Amino acid sequence: MSTKPMRQQVEEYIVELQDTIVGAFEKLDPNAGHFKRDSWIRAQGGRGESCVFPPSSSSTDTNASNATSVLEKAGVNISVVHGLLPPAAIRQMKADHSTIPTADAEKSMPFFAAGLSLVVHPRNPHAPTVHANYRYFEVTDPDEVDAKGDHKVVAWWFGGGSDLTPSYLYDDDATHFHKTLKEACDKHGSGLYAPFKKWCDEYFYIPHRSESRGIGGLFFDDLCDAPHKKLAEEVEKGTADPGRPRTPDEIFAFIKATGDAFVPSYLPILVKRAAAPSTEHERRWQLLRRGRYVEFNLVYDRGTKFGLATPGARIESILMSLPEVARWEYMSDMGEDEESREGQLLKVLKSPRAWL
Amino acid sequence: MSTKPMRQQVEEYIVELQDTIVGAFEKLDPNAGHFKRDSWIRAQGGRGESCVFPPSSSSTDTNASNATSVLEKAGVNISVVHGLLPPAAIRQMKADHSTIPTADAEKSMPFFAAGLSLVVHPRNPHAPTVHANYRYFEVTDPDEVDAKGDHKVVAWWFGGGSDLTPSYLYDDDATHFHKTLKEACDKHGSGLYAPFKKWCDEYFYIPHRSESRGIGGLFFDDLCDAPHKKLAEEVEKGTADPGRPRTPDEIFAFIKATGDAFVPSYLPILVKRAAAPSTEHERRWQLLRRGRYVEFNLVYDRGTKFGLATPGARIESILMSLPEVARWEYMSDMGEDEESREGQLLKVLKSPRAWL
Repeated sequence: MSTKPMRQQVEEYIVELQDTIVGAFEKLDPNAGHFKRDSWIRAQGGRGESCVFPPSSSSTDTNASNATSVLEKAGVNISVVHGLLPPAAIRQMKADHSTIPTADAEKSMPFFAAGLSLVVHPRNPHAPTVHANYRYFEVTDPDEVDAKGDHKVVAWWFGGGSDLTPSYLYDDDATHFHKTLKEACDKHGSGLYAPFKKWCDEYFYIPHRSESRGIGGLFFDDLCDAPHKKLAEEVEKGTADPGRPRTPDEIFAFIKATGDAFVPSYLPILVKRAAAPSTEHERRWQLLRRGRYVEFNLVYDRGTKFGLATPGARIESILMSLPEVARWEYMSDMGEDEESREGQLLKVLKSPRAWL
Repeated sequence: MSTKPMRQQVEEYIVELQDTIVGAFEKLDPNAGHFKRDSWIRAQGGRGESCVFPPSSSSTDTNASNATSVLEKAGVNISVVHGLLPPAAIRQMKADHSTIPTADAEKSMPFFAAGLSLVVHPRNPHAPTVHANYRYFEVTDPDEVDAKGDHKVVAWWFGGGSDLTPSYLYDDDATHFHKTLKEACDKHGSGLYAPFKKWCDEYFYIPHRSESRGIGGLFFDDLCDAPHKKLAEEVEKGTADPGRPRTPDEIFAFIKATGDAFVPSYLPILVKRAAAPSTEHERRWQLLRRGRYVEFNLVYDRGTKFGLATPGARIESILMSLPEVARWEYMSDMGEDEESREGQLLKVLKSPRAWL
């Protein structure tokens, strides 16, 4: 167990994870050039680093057949920010985090937030888009200081997950992705994968299309030492074996396991599909699916909505998740035939499957 | 003055206007084929007709250079719907429409809504996108019936407008568009164009980009016989000449003037720009601008947000406004140079201009 404050441990981990992930993509496609690294400072406190592909935006083609890079558009971002949360925000937070003292809901409280988030849109229609996020949040009491001079932590939690969005469904890929994530979960609790897989299906859902965004993965939030609304009673009571991660160190170990699982969960799929032959028809379907991705992110995604509504937020980082190109057709005929490859994807998006 | 109920007059007008507008586009590009006409019935009451281009979605190209039609994607829709508004909706409406009796805010009230809305995305990057909307709304009292058997109208209003979204700015086009709209306004009141032009600039604004969607036009809502918050005091008092349209017939005449102005305001611009030579660079900028159009429509447009949140709404009609293709680049370099054609557009989008 490290004696460093959790905020420092998390920051060190996401910096390292960003390097690992970006390095893995760069190694996969050495001719494509390095990701562009863009550091930024937040005036109100904190910093970030965006690693983006393509390194420059000067490519003009909008057509897969002209291009050779494995990735079409990708961003792997970290941000480490801190500041003061106003009383209204603290009161809202208190609903989910009862450890915040009632008296503290009347004053502004220091917060710390660190996270890595990534979205990768490959070029080949047979290679799925992937999204992942790992984050830590902390609220401290400005009036209580410990022996080392650190503010007392009055609330803390971890969140994260990753999910896969194919244009063409390969059962093998979905199974590999979910299996890798489940193995990462199972070492930290036998009751984690199932509820977080379900939560992922619920979260990445597009109500106006009655479709999931993709074939899911993991989604979790508000993980701390308090009982968690999404975990089963036997998991909470510890009668399940090996129980659930509960202390900051235990939950951080779980987060690291899911973060470390990212590369092995996704890269083998990308390697397998990136060079597959594809047609204009398949490219068109991929762009239509990217239109749905845009719809989810702009209309429903909490992080995006929060970011767009935050004055002074870094819009380019928030909207980095959007694909390079997206397409909309009125009453598209693609996917109408249930037996077609497109129709098979839609069927799974309309009724999420248990992959394992 | 017609003795027909206003709802019937409005329905007849928008049916005719749809034909006129679709006919004008079809005549402009006779080789492109007709718009597809799609009629629909609303289970809860009402009907609509969507006229869409392209007539089928089977084209696979995502690249301007392969295509020859003037339009890339267009929809000219009418809808005429009626039903019952629940008390909560009536109470909310009463804030802007004091003619609704207090007692009526406790019961469900019949409503009627008729409107035409259109969005046209031309293919050529030098030809601007256009949007227009003309609508009438009525609330009646189910318990009061006149001699003809019609319910008493307790609240009614008109709304509408049109606005232009160029990728490349041509001052001549902007001036022509605004001049045509102003002339339509001025016959019905000298104090209409200025406030409705301003309202348009305010409405079609993308806060997270600090940009207007386009170069404006007209936007108005809640036009009825009550004093209007956006009209100047001297216009309201009638000391301005010729005052303002106030009765249902007067306001309907104004709406028809703006609706009839659509074809002369836009078609000459489209004719002038549709065959201009264009480059891949210009196409790329056009697609980036279409990305902004998607951002506005999905994140801010009231009609779209209301539609997406309405169970059972016709999603394909609501999202018909989205372009065929849109593009996003991280930290795009396009438009950075203030002297470039792209930079010149951005300058106007960041500070709306008086075009007349």
